[in-house]
Amino acid sequence: MRVTVWNENRHERREGTRPAELYPEGIHGAIAAGLRTHLGTDVEVTTATMEQPEHGLPAEVVEATDVMLWWGHEDHPGVDDAVVDRVHQAVLGGMGLLVLHSGHYSKIFRRLMGTTCSLRWRNDGEREVVWTVAPRHPIADGIPDPLVIDEQEMYGEFFDIPVPEELIFLSTFSGGEVFRSGATWTRGAGRVFYFSPGDQEYPVYHHPDIQRVLANGVRWAAPAGRGLPLDATHRPLGWFSG
Amino acid sequence: MRVTVWNENRHERREGTRPAELYPEGIHGAIAAGLRTHLGTDVEVTTATMEQPEHGLPAEVVEATDVMLWWGHEDHPGVDDAVVDRVHQAVLGGMGLLVLHSGHYSKIFRRLMGTTCSLRWRNDGEREVVWTVAPRHPIADGIPDPLVIDEQEMYGEFFDIPVPEELIFLSTFSGGEVFRSGATWTRGAGRVFYFSPGDQEYPVYHHPDIQRVLANGVRWAAPAGRGLPLDATHRPLGWFSG
Amino acid sequence: MRVTVWNENRHERREGTRPAELYPEGIHGAIAAGLRTHLGTDVEVTTATMEQPEHGLPAEVVEATDVMLWWGHEDHPGVDDAVVDRVHQAVLGGMGLLVLHSGHYSKIFRRLMGTTCSLRWRNDGEREVVWTVAPRHPIADGIPDPLVIDEQEMYGEFFDIPVPEELIFLSTFSGGEVFRSGATWTRGAGRVFYFSPGDQEYPVYHHPDIQRVLANGVRWAAPAGRGLPLDATHRPLGWFSG
Amino acid sequence: MRVTVWNENRHERREGTRPAELYPEGIHGAIAAGLRTHLGTDVEVTTATMEQPEHGLPAEVVEATDVMLWWGHEDHPGVDDAVVDRVHQAVLGGMGLLVLHSGHYSKIFRRLMGTTCSLRWRNDGEREVVWTVAPRHPIADGIPDPLVIDEQEMYGEFFDIPVPEELIFLSTFSGGEVFRSGATWTRGAGRVFYFSPGDQEYPVYHHPDIQRVLANGVRWAAPAGRGLPLDATHRPLGWFSG
Repeated sequence: MRVTVWNENRHERREGTRPAELYPEGIHGAIAAGLRTHLGTDVEVTTATMEQPEHGLPAEVVEATDVMLWWGHEDHPGVDDAVVDRVHQAVLGGMGLLVLHSGHYSKIFRRLMGTTCSLRWRNDGEREVVWTVAPRHPIADGIPDPLVIDEQEMYGEFFDIPVPEELIFLSTFSGGEVFRSGATWTRGAGRVFYFSPGDQEYPVYHHPDIQRVLANGVRWAAPAGRGLPLDATHRPLGWFSG
Repeated sequence: MRVTVWNENRHERREGTRPAELYPEGIHGAIAAGLRTHLGTDVEVTTATMEQPEHGLPAEVVEATDVMLWWGHEDHPGVDDAVVDRVHQAVLGGMGLLVLHSGHYSKIFRRLMGTTCSLRWRNDGEREVVWTVAPRHPIADGIPDPLVIDEQEMYGEFFDIPVPEELIFLSTFSGGEVFRSGATWTRGAGRVFYFSPGDQEYPVYHHPDIQRVLANGVRWAAPAGRGLPLDATHRPLGWFSG
Repeated sequence: MRVTVWNENRHERREGTRPAELYPEGIHGAIAAGLRTHLGTDVEVTTATMEQPEHGLPAEVVEATDVMLWWGHEDHPGVDDAVVDRVHQAVLGGMGLLVLHSGHYSKIFRRLMGTTCSLRWRNDGEREVVWTVAPRHPIADGIPDPLVIDEQEMYGEFFDIPVPEELIFLSTFSGGEVFRSGATWTRGAGRVFYFSPGDQEYPVYHHPDIQRVLANGVRWAAPAGRGLPLDATHRPLGWFSG
Repeated sequence: MRVTVWNENRHERREGTRPAELYPEGIHGAIAAGLRTHLGTDVEVTTATMEQPEHGLPAEVVEATDVMLWWGHEDHPGVDDAVVDRVHQAVLGGMGLLVLHSGHYSKIFRRLMGTTCSLRWRNDGEREVVWTVAPRHPIADGIPDPLVIDEQEMYGEFFDIPVPEELIFLSTFSGGEVFRSGATWTRGAGRVFYFSPGDQEYPVYHHPDIQRVLANGVRWAAPAGRGLPLDATHRPLGWFSG
């Protein structure tokens, strides 16, 4: 299985800032390291970043990717529509996609959801408590309930998303807010998992349980091997003679 | 309540064709007449067609619409993106939308769904039998189970849509196919109902039970009056002091 | 429309206790009064309590009820199975049911759900904040978001229920817990709404917004009038000749 | 993984009948043979039948079972309630359950669903065409779309079940009916899959694609290994100190 971790990669390249201190290898580097720790050697994890040609996502990279992770924040509009088209088609064709934290406002997530994907937020270093409401789901496997994150940005409802197919995690914050922090959808032949914990100002992606959630998410979102009826999915088949 | 029936209005303007014979007042005219028959005098039904300026959907019309119905077929790409944006925003803000038959491939429906919305099809005048699988749903109220349409175009699975929030009708066809022919989703504050029966080659929109489904759909999709937290839906509200 | 508010009616009959002080007319009395305030004169609200013959729910009462509300706590096992059977059949036949607070452990709710319906709890007079995650749902109409209850018993996840068809409210508590506090299901031709705020130790049912939620729930759960295909729902129909 | 195939085992023990001819090793024998063919050697498949002591399901068998399959037809009422309780508790605790064909009326399925589970039916040797509406679901992996069964009993809507969490297969029949023939639910920590094809009068369980569906279903329903928070699922945990 081949995993591509995509990152906007801006905050952490500004010297002397908190993100640069927390993520010297980039947020993508931390996420990739966590995946390598928690997934077996059958999984090859690579990274791609926005400043690379075609944002590091030329056709051959996207086509070779089984599961993509997407982290972006301050320049969603700067992502080339042609790349968004390419990733969108890949998801519909079966590629898994994990959208992380501020990626809720990314072009690719909004396009897959069809809504504004807006939410309440406040960055005040509050405690986030992540509760499992689907204990049987493979993404929750091995995750403590609750999972406590000492400091995080608050994301709160109303989160303007389509009703999730599966609601896995709910988060509460010190201020009393609540958020649907782990949720899934199917789009075409592809599986999408949104997971909100993870901000550039906090060491969330170094947290072993958060890494485990992402690793579980990758396993869950990976395309089913043989037998996926892609043709049936994506073009009219015409007459069925029965 | 104000209802706007939108129609591409091309097939039925070609003299001497079957659509022109079946729908002398246009498909929009037939749909509007059916709605007027089945809805009370509290509902004002108007129509808009593609050849009009801004496709008959300038901002003031869209803003004044509580529920829109959308029928299109042969020129989906010709619909102006600015009008699609306007309708999209209206749905997210609470306007109801009924997408009909070949409207499955319209820009607005694909944008709301995030998928290809492709399907199997065959136009061979087959019997369509519409079964109710959500008998308690208000859209099914008063609809015979099954509802038999003597001649229709076949629409078959796999229909590449997000999993419906509510699956109301399933159709079978003489060839043995099946289709999720009546389904709903919420997008932002707006309700969306897709209903597949209705082709320009058949008198489906003159069928009283089909008219009743559409009238029920309009009632169901109408915005909730006061109290809809549109602000919460569409922009971050910031601090909650609790 | 005829509404029957059922109550175990034990806590509040113990003189000198907090429940007796808060609910001198019984919890059923407070709920009924709230419904009468918020619903129109087309709705007739009556009450029934556990100590009455057949728990106040003989066949003629159940058959004449459109929507029932159920509050119980300390003697769920004492409810006669024959009465539970009767209410269960009524729900499947189209009667609406609102299950309140500690009613999560009632025989009728567990039978409709098929699960243990267990949850975490702690009675410590904490603040409950009720957030709306389905702003378009009629049960949320006119309800402030968030709705703050100054003192309540804590109910927390994991709540062992089937995945709700519609998730309307999420609650957080001072201790950091979260709860799916407003959720719906369909069973047969009947609609079920569970709403957790409301404990005998706190004046929750005197709160106007809580009363409004219950009134909205009654409207939502009321049987669809004519046209409900009860026969199709409840017995095999045999041959369809097409 | 340990799989137990349970069967009422009556039809096929009547000499000279069609079921006896089709299923000389019993329906359970045919199902078990199919599972052994399609699952790896890590899966141990055993059988249990109704005429055995405790219906072949004493506590030690149920506790040792990861996934159970259930086929019954003519004597659902004869199944001991104590055994149904045991299987019910096992499902809530994480055991997978596949309910087959006429098992829709079994005590265990009705108890897990909370509805009548009634349906339309007609036994006339009609063609059943099974369509996939969730091509990405692991239970559909490798299954032809459509899957054609030359002769089967007709099962038709309205099927009085709770709305499925996942709808995987839809079947059509020569008479024009439709049926939600493959659907899933979660109950507690357990996964439930209902699959309708399979009648004692037809050789359905010898069909390789049907066997593949059941094998896929077993893999999907198997309990998640370590980490399943059974305690959280099944009893209140009390105070969370955060």
